[in-house]
Amino acid sequence: MSLEGLKLYSYYRSSASYRVRIALNLKDIPYEYVAVHLLKDGGEQHQNSYKSLNPSAELPTLIHGNNILSQSVAICLYLDDIAPEKPLLFSKDPFQKAKIIQACEIINSGIQPLQNLRVVQKLGQDFGFSTEQKEEWIRHWVGLGFTAFENLISSNDGPFCFGISPTAADAFLAPQIFAAKRFSVDISNFSKIQDVFSHCEKLDAFKMAHPDNQPDTPTE
Amino acid sequence: MSLEGLKLYSYYRSSASYRVRIALNLKDIPYEYVAVHLLKDGGEQHQNSYKSLNPSAELPTLIHGNNILSQSVAICLYLDDIAPEKPLLFSKDPFQKAKIIQACEIINSGIQPLQNLRVVQKLGQDFGFSTEQKEEWIRHWVGLGFTAFENLISSNDGPFCFGISPTAADAFLAPQIFAAKRFSVDISNFSKIQDVFSHCEKLDAFKMAHPDNQPDTPTE
Repeated sequence: MSLEGLKLYSYYRSSASYRVRIALNLKDIPYEYVAVHLLKDGGEQHQNSYKSLNPSAELPTLIHGNNILSQSVAICLYLDDIAPEKPLLFSKDPFQKAKIIQACEIINSGIQPLQNLRVVQKLGQDFGFSTEQKEEWIRHWVGLGFTAFENLISSNDGPFCFGISPTAADAFLAPQIFAAKRFSVDISNFSKIQDVFSHCEKLDAFKMAHPDNQPDTPTE
Repeated sequence: MSLEGLKLYSYYRSSASYRVRIALNLKDIPYEYVAVHLLKDGGEQHQNSYKSLNPSAELPTLIHGNNILSQSVAICLYLDDIAPEKPLLFSKDPFQKAKIIQACEIINSGIQPLQNLRVVQKLGQDFGFSTEQKEEWIRHWVGLGFTAFENLISSNDGPFCFGISPTAADAFLAPQIFAAKRFSVDISNFSKIQDVFSHCEKLDAFKMAHPDNQPDTPTE
């Protein structure tokens, strides 16, 4: 099946969209960017036209021909299957591949669900969390998750999470660092994570995917 | 590599352990059960001996020879790679496989992280949530996630999430239903989910994995 005509429903600041943008760039797969504003009009992701593509009303969603797919881990696995060149998962070695997914999941299910927009909104609106309490909440989960992540990758020589090439683990880590900085989480204790990130941010695949450089990035 | 001698670090009531127990049973892979008590002595998962296996201090962890792996999605993918018989992911069709992972992630990253023990403990101990508020919190996220899951599988004929055989999606769904019932979440609106579950719970693979039937299940 041709790789032409891929569309990615994305929001410039969405962590999970940012991961998939990096993944697509790492694999040199071009795509059309379709912006979905997570805040405007109560969130465009809640419109029925979008929910018909993504029942979770979340970003991102990838469209490939008639195939409609969401969840960043599922999308990365799919991209490696349909375009095996430049694998995100070293897909020949089952254990190495699984360790990369383990790393992705520390972020995907261990950190991000606890700090994403709808969760923090809920804590504020329905449970009266102050801004300070929200930040304490986010700092706690990022700290716990990064401790695990740092530990997991500490025995690797680098420069990337799992060796000399970036993988899905790096594509998941960079957006989580962006989010951590946004919420003023101190990451100075995570030296391996910082070192990996310093290599990631030099690459075009990561630069082009950055929230500052998207079609829907606000101009001011 | 031989499939003999697999060990699973598990807790009878841990959702993610329960998923992997179902997955191993569906694939007819025998394993040794190593109990880790999530509550005793502040939680055995926090002991250094366990954290050396799993830096996230969570369950489950799978040991296969020298390979040490955690995160239930990573474990399921690994099991399909090392033992392709009875696939959990229909692994020949990239899109079908990715949709199954999308379904798993609705539970793995969409619901479970928000209702798991450490999160609910944190809400109670550090943010003063009452039992009622904790239940309201859990009901909200289960409801939202199940709405998406129901929607995703609604066009399938069944009897399972994705057709005539159980997949990883069913292995993730059953433990989430167990957890929902434990927290008295009303799931009567989710007719497709309930129908699928009624088929799952008849299978030995699901019965043997149930929290009532584990070596560490309390006797009273």
